[in-house]
Amino acid sequence: MLEYDDATGYLIGEENQGMRIMFVMMNNARLSVGLQGVALAERAYQASVDYAVERTQGRAIGATKDSPIIDFPDVRRMLMTQKATIAAMRRLMYLNAGQMDISHFHPDEAVRERAAEIVGLLTPICKSWGTDMGFELTSTAIQVFGGMGYIEETGVAQHMRDVRITSIYEGTNGVQAADLVGRKLGVRNGSSVLEFLEHMGEIDAELEAAGDEFASIRSNFATHFEALGEATKWIFMNGPSDPNAALAGSSPYQRMWGIVLGGWLMARTALAAVGTDRAESEFVLAKFYAEQILPQASGLLGAVTAGAEDLFALDAAQLGARA
Amino acid sequence: MLEYDDATGYLIGEENQGMRIMFVMMNNARLSVGLQGVALAERAYQASVDYAVERTQGRAIGATKDSPIIDFPDVRRMLMTQKATIAAMRRLMYLNAGQMDISHFHPDEAVRERAAEIVGLLTPICKSWGTDMGFELTSTAIQVFGGMGYIEETGVAQHMRDVRITSIYEGTNGVQAADLVGRKLGVRNGSSVLEFLEHMGEIDAELEAAGDEFASIRSNFATHFEALGEATKWIFMNGPSDPNAALAGSSPYQRMWGIVLGGWLMARTALAAVGTDRAESEFVLAKFYAEQILPQASGLLGAVTAGAEDLFALDAAQLGARA
Repeated sequence: MLEYDDATGYLIGEENQGMRIMFVMMNNARLSVGLQGVALAERAYQASVDYAVERTQGRAIGATKDSPIIDFPDVRRMLMTQKATIAAMRRLMYLNAGQMDISHFHPDEAVRERAAEIVGLLTPICKSWGTDMGFELTSTAIQVFGGMGYIEETGVAQHMRDVRITSIYEGTNGVQAADLVGRKLGVRNGSSVLEFLEHMGEIDAELEAAGDEFASIRSNFATHFEALGEATKWIFMNGPSDPNAALAGSSPYQRMWGIVLGGWLMARTALAAVGTDRAESEFVLAKFYAEQILPQASGLLGAVTAGAEDLFALDAAQLGARA
Repeated sequence: MLEYDDATGYLIGEENQGMRIMFVMMNNARLSVGLQGVALAERAYQASVDYAVERTQGRAIGATKDSPIIDFPDVRRMLMTQKATIAAMRRLMYLNAGQMDISHFHPDEAVRERAAEIVGLLTPICKSWGTDMGFELTSTAIQVFGGMGYIEETGVAQHMRDVRITSIYEGTNGVQAADLVGRKLGVRNGSSVLEFLEHMGEIDAELEAAGDEFASIRSNFATHFEALGEATKWIFMNGPSDPNAALAGSSPYQRMWGIVLGGWLMARTALAAVGTDRAESEFVLAKFYAEQILPQASGLLGAVTAGAEDLFALDAAQLGARA
């Protein structure tokens, strides 16, 4: 333990407001850390897509000479996964940053307050999803490079090492999840999050109006958005009487939020891009995300709704602890 | 390019058999690398469970003094995820090692040949799933340590750095996936894999006979085993006319195999342990795996069955390549 014998303390701000004041800094820091995850993923992606164009190896189906590895479907999957997920993450950060500005500067106090609620809800998700995906995607970039990524010559390994701290500092991602289910879901007795979910659900009518081309985006979003709703309902039903049950599923629940928010924002962007010169590329990314990434959300529902009992069924000795 | 001017070459083995001979070594190496993933995950897990017992931080729900972090549900989730997944991986390695011995030493030639087919099918899965999970789980171990894991003092970060190469060398995990769908699924026109799936499906009757306690393991296995069957059927339907369609989904398909094989082996172990002093702990691990990990398999079905078209819809410039 550190002791500051005979030291002089200075009061910064009002007495007993230190924790509150600290969180002004901390909430901002959490958004910056989430953005650090996006930034490192983007830098690693840029390196990997350039390498995939340059590096030849073997022949793709039907090729008559050596192929750049970008011509292989599995390399394409890695690149598309990076590109679509980074786009979704970046849009989530923008959404939150916009709400933060509104919470400070909108002339209407009710609008400011609602925006502050949304910032509160989105902040743990931005921090945790941005950093968890930052880690996964920088690793994917290394995989595109193969052995050249593992050795240090290309510089791509550095991004993965650098990003690994981001899921730990400014509150571990597990602490973010506890904040999400323990505090943010309870705002206005749950009305804050339910209103936000209702707002997200309004996209269904827009996707329907956009026609058959958007049918697969619409059906996938509906399915996995519903799973997020089920998970939320389960926590509302079980959390009040058994806080450990809600905490037990908090991390997979937080991940579901990231994945589904990502799908919502990709779909919104594709709708907004209709009729512009980005219509095609935004549609492709939104469709890829909806069909090939979004379904992972439903795969987490079982973990969210299992409760705490099985997590504690084995004692420390049965888990193998030597202490 | 390296050139060996005026060097003398020596023929090792018979002429034109080099590739085949090399693969005797390579298949063995692939299993060793898969096992390397398991071993590093296990070592990191041991460190993290010991740390979780020793380290106190805050108070768990209902605690009256500082809690060791193993008392927090989210830390328990990380430990149980490690322990259950490592157990599943280890059993997969044992299964394959056993089949390898049978393929060499069984007196009945037909049994030897069938065992060799199974080794061929399981080898890419052992290599890729063992190393992908080795990476994820060593990272989970770091997360249990928090900031102490990221700095070098505890030694746990080293395991994650060391394991990262294993998804690259001895054939990247993408190459394993191409081997799985491109070669192993085609053995005896698909009969080899279909017979193995049929064998896996036989556990349903055993789980039913084991009674109500096993109902959730049974229903979860049935659901996600069916998704693996659907994925397999899709590849059989679409792969022959469009090899790129099968290759496009090969990595998520390979991951589905790892997850579902893991669930099958955990359930088999729990059934085998009934009536022994390990009955309770094996049941708990199998139930946790079935309810909370296995559902991830179905979350991959969309990616397996999407085909190649969307992966190639954006050209290199649209993907952001500068070249």
